[in-house]
Amino acid sequence: MTIEMFEKPLGMRDDFPFIAKKKAELRTKGTEIMQQAGYDLLQTPTLEYYETIGKISAIPDKALFKLLDSQGETLVLRPDMTSPIARVAASKLLKEKMPVRLGYYSNVFRAQKREGGRPAEFEQMGVELIGDNSLYADAEVIILASAILKELEVESGRIVIGHTQLLQSILKEFGLDERQIEKVREALVSKNSVRFEQLVGELAIASEKVEVFKALNRSKTLEDWKQWINFTNPEQNALYEEMLKLEKIIDRNGLSDSVTYDLSFISHMTYYTGLVFEFYGAGSGFPLGNGGRYDGLMNQFGLQVGATGFGLRVDRLLEAISPNQENSAGTLILFVEETEQEAHEEAQKLRAQGEHVTLQYAPAVQAIDEFTGLFKEVRRLDGALNG
Amino acid sequence: MTIEMFEKPLGMRDDFPFIAKKKAELRTKGTEIMQQAGYDLLQTPTLEYYETIGKISAIPDKALFKLLDSQGETLVLRPDMTSPIARVAASKLLKEKMPVRLGYYSNVFRAQKREGGRPAEFEQMGVELIGDNSLYADAEVIILASAILKELEVESGRIVIGHTQLLQSILKEFGLDERQIEKVREALVSKNSVRFEQLVGELAIASEKVEVFKALNRSKTLEDWKQWINFTNPEQNALYEEMLKLEKIIDRNGLSDSVTYDLSFISHMTYYTGLVFEFYGAGSGFPLGNGGRYDGLMNQFGLQVGATGFGLRVDRLLEAISPNQENSAGTLILFVEETEQEAHEEAQKLRAQGEHVTLQYAPAVQAIDEFTGLFKEVRRLDGALNG
Repeated sequence: MTIEMFEKPLGMRDDFPFIAKKKAELRTKGTEIMQQAGYDLLQTPTLEYYETIGKISAIPDKALFKLLDSQGETLVLRPDMTSPIARVAASKLLKEKMPVRLGYYSNVFRAQKREGGRPAEFEQMGVELIGDNSLYADAEVIILASAILKELEVESGRIVIGHTQLLQSILKEFGLDERQIEKVREALVSKNSVRFEQLVGELAIASEKVEVFKALNRSKTLEDWKQWINFTNPEQNALYEEMLKLEKIIDRNGLSDSVTYDLSFISHMTYYTGLVFEFYGAGSGFPLGNGGRYDGLMNQFGLQVGATGFGLRVDRLLEAISPNQENSAGTLILFVEETEQEAHEEAQKLRAQGEHVTLQYAPAVQAIDEFTGLFKEVRRLDGALNG
Repeated sequence: MTIEMFEKPLGMRDDFPFIAKKKAELRTKGTEIMQQAGYDLLQTPTLEYYETIGKISAIPDKALFKLLDSQGETLVLRPDMTSPIARVAASKLLKEKMPVRLGYYSNVFRAQKREGGRPAEFEQMGVELIGDNSLYADAEVIILASAILKELEVESGRIVIGHTQLLQSILKEFGLDERQIEKVREALVSKNSVRFEQLVGELAIASEKVEVFKALNRSKTLEDWKQWINFTNPEQNALYEEMLKLEKIIDRNGLSDSVTYDLSFISHMTYYTGLVFEFYGAGSGFPLGNGGRYDGLMNQFGLQVGATGFGLRVDRLLEAISPNQENSAGTLILFVEETEQEAHEEAQKLRAQGEHVTLQYAPAVQAIDEFTGLFKEVRRLDGALNG
């Protein structure tokens, strides 16, 4: 294969000025809201050991970018931010300060096998709230994510909420064994309802329960959830009670219209153990982000504490935000040797007023008309008439 | 080798909250100044082809992080930003708009062979001004870098300016051949004055010129430069005239006291062809950043245009800035189930005033005294006395 000078690796992209500027705005706004809610910003390295972060990251092995370091150890390009942040939170410096609130804006990497428009590198912003097992922690991160979406002016944001532990308990109650539960989970993760209904038909479920089971992925409210819950099972009863409390907080925050409670919703991220949620904007089937409770992950770092958090995908946020591609070009001042000082002073004055001012030595420009056409305003101190 | 769960690869670091927050501030301030001066922000991918960016980057091959993609092509982790930006600037979208002004804040990668405190990943911010061959372009980027250093409150910033092309011409004038010039360059790049003087002694230079030659690396002003320049050589004469014009602009910008003109100064980055410069702060021998004119690099992408730019190292900027590690922790509001709503409303009110407020369900905190001790102010709505 011959590589042309302009080519980039599969799934790699340049952010041209308009996109880079927009992203910088999202980053500033998003991280400011995190900090207002008491989250500290954190940055972890791009490269991690495969043996640690690579293996616990819940990203399939084939999607990891791997390389060898000079010691012969396998490294990975950070595939997600949750596991590195768990590592940092469990370190000496922070584990005494639980609950710990950490926020980030970072790029993550997922290798692509073929050109399909999927990025192999993309940015996420999110938070992790580590060391708080209460439902208030889950409520906090859902409300925080919604506040960010609102601040970023994402149109008609929607939240889907499920509960991994409650679903697991219900599937057991229906008499499914581990292997069957795994199959059902797979169908639900891939949101393949045909496959799901087909599976339900194949399972040895009492015939009077089959139709109820099939309706699982059409649940929309906590009221709906009642038909699957066995309230004499203390675990299910307690989890449902918590969901009702959560709903109250969510409603009070004015989010009731944007939330769907879908008992069949589970994440492809295998480390989630409790509440899980996904965020959507208008006009796209892809989630803007997701999150949930991952109490097991911290155990990997020797800490018996609960944790919850979310991550939002910046590329999808950009698509969900009303396009506003105004020309951001500012003022151009063209000068020649004799007017250089005057031009410079003029630029300083305008910049002090917050304007973006390009100073340009006129004889260095090849195509002067095309160049001046790129600016909102042009001041010519090069002997030509002002345009 | 057994890898512990908390270990990170050689040269990889976590940015804990104080550092991450400081960096976010530098990023915001630095990129704002770039934009005010008419530079557009740009972001290029972390992974590039070895055949393109890897080979032209001027970073030694052994310092490149390499990996194979699914097609068997060798990729590198971006070792600098100048070559990727050159690639973008030469693309269809931008090459019609010359001169092009692009700015960035990005991490770059340099593999380390052993643990020596050197980072294998660090952030740079900088600009590239592409398509302007005039000295005004060089003056612009030097003044812009100085403005950024000033805005970031770098104490007693210094600038060292040299000229690769002029030095090359002078070395030829002294009768050195290509091989000798290369040796002298190496000694000068490594700032090894003992080696330099030893070399001068070994070279076949007319004895009356030896002492003059040896003084090359003690030049401090353009006046000093006169003793090496042959003014009957039109190239040297013209380049010196340009330097005098540059000095005038630099002086007018109030930078005369911070600039040293060192004719022996050249960069380890081999793509520089003309003016080169380095920035220093107080208290460290390491440069904060560097830059210069690299007219040859754009040829690699099929464009016969000049370019100039600079990059500043964020880790060294942080060290050069007066430490100001104030406790950034804000207000903590502790609540219980009954006071959750009250606590939430209180937090909203304070956040609207710009405060950072952590809301925490009190029963979820294990060590309540240690936790409350982390905050500037604590409001207890959990039945305990206000602290």
